[in-house]
Amino acid sequence: MNAPQRHQTHAVKIRHLTIGGGAPIMVQSMTNTDTADISKTFEQIKQLYEAGSELVRITVNNEAAAKAVPVIREKLDAANIPVPLAGCFHYNGHTLLNENLGLCEALDKYRINPGNVGFGAKRDRNFEIMIEKAIAYKKAVRIGVNWGSLDQDLATRLMDENAALPVPKTADEVTREALVQSALISAQKAEAIGLSPHQIILSAKVSRVPDLIAVYRELAKRSNYALHLGLTEAGMGSKGIVATALAEGILLFEGIGDTIRASLTPEPNGDRTLEVKVCREILQALGLRSFTPEVSACPGCGRTTSTVFQELAQKIQHYLDTSMPVWKERFPGVETLKVAVMGCIVNGPGESKHADIGISLPGTGEQPVAPVFTDGVKTHTLRGPHIAEEFQELVRTYIEKRFGVGQKAA
Amino acid sequence: MNAPQRHQTHAVKIRHLTIGGGAPIMVQSMTNTDTADISKTFEQIKQLYEAGSELVRITVNNEAAAKAVPVIREKLDAANIPVPLAGCFHYNGHTLLNENLGLCEALDKYRINPGNVGFGAKRDRNFEIMIEKAIAYKKAVRIGVNWGSLDQDLATRLMDENAALPVPKTADEVTREALVQSALISAQKAEAIGLSPHQIILSAKVSRVPDLIAVYRELAKRSNYALHLGLTEAGMGSKGIVATALAEGILLFEGIGDTIRASLTPEPNGDRTLEVKVCREILQALGLRSFTPEVSACPGCGRTTSTVFQELAQKIQHYLDTSMPVWKERFPGVETLKVAVMGCIVNGPGESKHADIGISLPGTGEQPVAPVFTDGVKTHTLRGPHIAEEFQELVRTYIEKRFGVGQKAA
Repeated sequence: MNAPQRHQTHAVKIRHLTIGGGAPIMVQSMTNTDTADISKTFEQIKQLYEAGSELVRITVNNEAAAKAVPVIREKLDAANIPVPLAGCFHYNGHTLLNENLGLCEALDKYRINPGNVGFGAKRDRNFEIMIEKAIAYKKAVRIGVNWGSLDQDLATRLMDENAALPVPKTADEVTREALVQSALISAQKAEAIGLSPHQIILSAKVSRVPDLIAVYRELAKRSNYALHLGLTEAGMGSKGIVATALAEGILLFEGIGDTIRASLTPEPNGDRTLEVKVCREILQALGLRSFTPEVSACPGCGRTTSTVFQELAQKIQHYLDTSMPVWKERFPGVETLKVAVMGCIVNGPGESKHADIGISLPGTGEQPVAPVFTDGVKTHTLRGPHIAEEFQELVRTYIEKRFGVGQKAA
Repeated sequence: MNAPQRHQTHAVKIRHLTIGGGAPIMVQSMTNTDTADISKTFEQIKQLYEAGSELVRITVNNEAAAKAVPVIREKLDAANIPVPLAGCFHYNGHTLLNENLGLCEALDKYRINPGNVGFGAKRDRNFEIMIEKAIAYKKAVRIGVNWGSLDQDLATRLMDENAALPVPKTADEVTREALVQSALISAQKAEAIGLSPHQIILSAKVSRVPDLIAVYRELAKRSNYALHLGLTEAGMGSKGIVATALAEGILLFEGIGDTIRASLTPEPNGDRTLEVKVCREILQALGLRSFTPEVSACPGCGRTTSTVFQELAQKIQHYLDTSMPVWKERFPGVETLKVAVMGCIVNGPGESKHADIGISLPGTGEQPVAPVFTDGVKTHTLRGPHIAEEFQELVRTYIEKRFGVGQKAA
């Protein structure tokens, strides 16, 4: 329903992965360990991969990091973790790639920030060196523009031109135009050097939602390069999640975007995999991909009894989350399952019927029974202190019956 | 920039509040205490109000709840809490309103669910009684449709009509059409009884994001009633936040929606005010309203030193959040402040310049100094173990200077 027409882009191959060209929208993330610390970085890449990151970016900021990357790649291969690696370069990428051929080979994608490749004549030569390496090693390149490190020559030129107009645009409009032009001009330069459009991904990140939407609409209007969506410096806690979901979701719902990242600031020592979880939740909520069974749960109100209902919703969510690593192998398609956990009779039976399997708990003053609906039909009535365990068992049985191997033909 | 053209709706007055008619988009929430428990319900309404809820809904599900409402209203007035109260009715609203004139008066808005007002001839009479009370007491009405409690007569009729078509629509399409029709037909009935369109707000909630968007686009296309947006049964944790932000944000960015609620399922004993916080974050991220200074913080990567940066971002966010209750009185306009906390030199200085005040911490291997930018210009350089406290002090000074009373003219 209302499926957005996807903006058509060139497909980019990155190891076994395809980004763009109509491929499913890929989830990616970035480590925050010191890349030179091989075991810590390996461990975090593994965690991000296991959480569902389909590509992992690591910073390559110095010689020690450059030397570590091939070792990290070997360790990943040995551990049977095929996730592609992107290297993030600023200032010295040309030197690091030039002097570390093992790095050129171990990375699957080079992220180049056109604002951070040097100045004047050096800038063009530095950029050229990195693109030549990508051509020689058949690697993808992300031209990654960021308003925090925008090409100052270009920005200044556009500001000057704008000031001379009879009706100048606002500074914000000129900044957005500079972001778009920086990405597009760099991509054209890369093509002129010999890089294929099938090796180019663009991004142009800003930290305000309406700006991001405006910038990517322009990129999509003016080119067919594969697009990496990301709100930069999204922030902490629910604020970062809300802003990321809005910026990326509004664009995705218009058909714009081939791969996404959530740049959330973790709480101190917080779990880095939250950024992967949020990306998957965005794609699943929009109906673009399915990763894990969905639990619809009502918010509760003065009709629901104490915390019984909240605890049941949490238990079921936890049960599904922890079972998925095994289930996704044993029960193909289980990620499309829809479960409802409802607190009372008002919307309980109705919402439960819309789900594959749902339970409607008794609210305050209702009969102490909980009807269970399977495929829209009332099939069980639970009562007593073990409703949660019994419902969990019914979910498990439903999954085996519907998604168990050999069940599809039945 | 790209400011969405707001869908034009009738303005609805609810106590001192206006919803629709181009008024700012209002944040609302709902209690989950037993309404009959007067002190608990009063306490939660107070918390929700203090968190920023501009209207609070409470369930009125039985005689005890009906009798409690006028007492709760009195306690709120005595505590100088002017927040309007909406009463949520299902099944017995007509009886409760008929038999409790204090209830009719104490509530500012009646929420009527057309799927839960009774059957056959009784349904029309029950609906009529509630609308008559709203007319007599000059109260607003929300016609609140929910796919978990959809008018079954209407749904069945539309399904039958659809089945007779040469090319029938899908069951999902017919369900969405039934939701829209249920809301619109009920509103027309209310108008026929004598309720003004300036007393009517519509909602039609479903739990899947693309369905919600489709339903509200139709409501906006076919009517000018003020619209209450809400994704029903959004779920727990980041999943509920993501889905709510997407559903409501995509519509708001199209100019649809006059008031919003986030129906998040709290963790057991979790903080109910999260639903208010998320609503405010949605409106602020889209640039539709400002409530609190915004912190842009980068996500950190292998260039950032240990957790210093995450701790600073958290400290500053916490400092701003806890200071706001006092600041919003003393420093009018402070809610529009933009602060940046950045982890290294890559995007640090640039992003900091875009903020009103920003700090760029030294990353691994950088000089151990942190430049501070004020209104785009580098004004201070911090170093040593007290960077967080010193930056906090600079933020405080900036706020006093810029937003202190008497500063605007300066």
